[in-house]
Amino acid sequence: EDAEWVGAELTRRFGPSRWSFALTATDANRWAIRLARAVTGRSKVLVNSYCYHGSVDESLIVAGPDGDGVSRPGNVGAPVNVTVTSRVAEFNDVAGLERALDHGDVAAVLMEPALTNIGIVLPEAGYLNAVRRLTHDSGAVLINDETHTLSAGPGGATGAWGLQPDVVTVGKAIGGGIPVAAYGLTSELADRVQSRADLDLVDVGGVGGTLAGNALSMAACRATLEHVLTDEAWVGMTALAGRWTTGVQRIIDEHSLPWSVQQLGARSEYRFSSPAPRTGTESHAATDSELDDYLHVYLANRDVLMTPFHNMALICPQTTAAQVDLHEQVFAAAVAELLAA
Amino acid sequence: EDAEWVGAELTRRFGPSRWSFALTATDANRWAIRLARAVTGRSKVLVNSYCYHGSVDESLIVAGPDGDGVSRPGNVGAPVNVTVTSRVAEFNDVAGLERALDHGDVAAVLMEPALTNIGIVLPEAGYLNAVRRLTHDSGAVLINDETHTLSAGPGGATGAWGLQPDVVTVGKAIGGGIPVAAYGLTSELADRVQSRADLDLVDVGGVGGTLAGNALSMAACRATLEHVLTDEAWVGMTALAGRWTTGVQRIIDEHSLPWSVQQLGARSEYRFSSPAPRTGTESHAATDSELDDYLHVYLANRDVLMTPFHNMALICPQTTAAQVDLHEQVFAAAVAELLAA
Repeated sequence: EDAEWVGAELTRRFGPSRWSFALTATDANRWAIRLARAVTGRSKVLVNSYCYHGSVDESLIVAGPDGDGVSRPGNVGAPVNVTVTSRVAEFNDVAGLERALDHGDVAAVLMEPALTNIGIVLPEAGYLNAVRRLTHDSGAVLINDETHTLSAGPGGATGAWGLQPDVVTVGKAIGGGIPVAAYGLTSELADRVQSRADLDLVDVGGVGGTLAGNALSMAACRATLEHVLTDEAWVGMTALAGRWTTGVQRIIDEHSLPWSVQQLGARSEYRFSSPAPRTGTESHAATDSELDDYLHVYLANRDVLMTPFHNMALICPQTTAAQVDLHEQVFAAAVAELLAA
Repeated sequence: EDAEWVGAELTRRFGPSRWSFALTATDANRWAIRLARAVTGRSKVLVNSYCYHGSVDESLIVAGPDGDGVSRPGNVGAPVNVTVTSRVAEFNDVAGLERALDHGDVAAVLMEPALTNIGIVLPEAGYLNAVRRLTHDSGAVLINDETHTLSAGPGGATGAWGLQPDVVTVGKAIGGGIPVAAYGLTSELADRVQSRADLDLVDVGGVGGTLAGNALSMAACRATLEHVLTDEAWVGMTALAGRWTTGVQRIIDEHSLPWSVQQLGARSEYRFSSPAPRTGTESHAATDSELDDYLHVYLANRDVLMTPFHNMALICPQTTAAQVDLHEQVFAAAVAELLAA
């Protein structure tokens, strides 16, 4: 049975022992949040400013100028004022997290171990340990959303950095294009959920869906984890991402550009600020749409396709050193032309 | 391009002209609700008591003894008290709907044209016309969730009964087992959405997802609509559901049981009350778990598999008259043994 194999493999990679399936990481996050609220009896979800957790309503919050949460710009028809359901802290801000948790109403901290979608923001030394200690002390469930940070290694950042969250959510890439996602609970947390006889966990209780864990998704997930996204694949992907990063850094240094480049396992990205942004808000501020457009078009016209947002390289098992070197060459030319203009 | 073909076919069947895709009908409903809130500037969603719209947070509300909304029993870790986001009215209760809409804060009425998941509850004469008139007059967006009522015909109840909602959501069955869902907007409503430059409709705004409208889902949806769930298929399915219904009614009449049987196109179901329930609350009250268990086990042991909840028959294009007749025969025996006991 593929679901059993996939569950065991996810446990090997990420740690948590009880896995349920969804079709999207958004749903995996939603259902994990509902379970966290149910077992803690608390109402709020804490996320990082400019985080990315799909279309989870609670995640569309950013820190305003005074640090208080406000609705993220562009939020389409939010169900309630987001501050009713959510708290926010900047990534890498231990004191801010502690202040937010001190309210005592946070059911779960939902976070990526490194920000990805607003540009890569890596955790500073000691930050993730502090998050684990503070969430534990305050009784909040810690959820690591590894949907994008999966790039850090076969078990995402959780596996690569030895983290111990209460829940791991993951999706998208583990299905190789077929819709699938999963959320894993520690056995301790799973027992707390199961002991709640008042919860409707199998029918109309707000958790689960008809095609969650369907046979095709499970087969695709097994095939992807067994044959494509293997431990060995990451060795090669991470090395190539390192080569890409070194090349970009060389050009930044050569021209003393006020830019930075950050690697997260098999992905890497440069931003228009130096030093590298350490919070989502800083990373958002480093955005320069004109510069983005210039580089995207310049590269696309010379056979190098970057991610549609920012300037990120996603290395896959089929990526070659020649492709990485082509990027470096075209990027160098783009920068040279830009500076000459 | 399959998406284009599917969109055109959904327009032919259901009416609305602009279609977007999702992986689950729950998400289709969620995103339609967000758009409705955005264009109306209102906060609440009105649903029917004991409705079914997947795991949409706003839909987990039922009418309490005094008619006011309360959280549906079993609701797992609700984001907020459901009365903050939702209003509720009983199905078939025009006056109750009018009272709820009079508050002026309802962005959308999200409904199935017939209740399905709490047991089939059919609309009374004039009810759906009244809903259309009242929602129009109050400025609320009317969303028909056809995910289950699709059984009524190729275009669901919307097509079969000539309804004119502002949005149709549909999912599940249209993909033949592959995850897919869709929501269609009238061109008028789509224009209202598009005119709102402040909404982030393509990135992190709470609407859409990475694999929504993926190539496999679109191909599966096209194959299903083109070759399986055809107009002709419904002729046969509906006739067989009629045969099933007539057979069950005959046995109910023969023993003067206080039961009723209701048909909705290609599905049919009996309930332990007579006359048939006319609201979700009445249908919920007609539940008898012991009787359910007795009939499910009796039938399953004699090669007749009913839906896991209630006693519903879902006729598919492959169902045969012999299978329908076998059900009648076994059902008759089950009832006879029950009454003899």
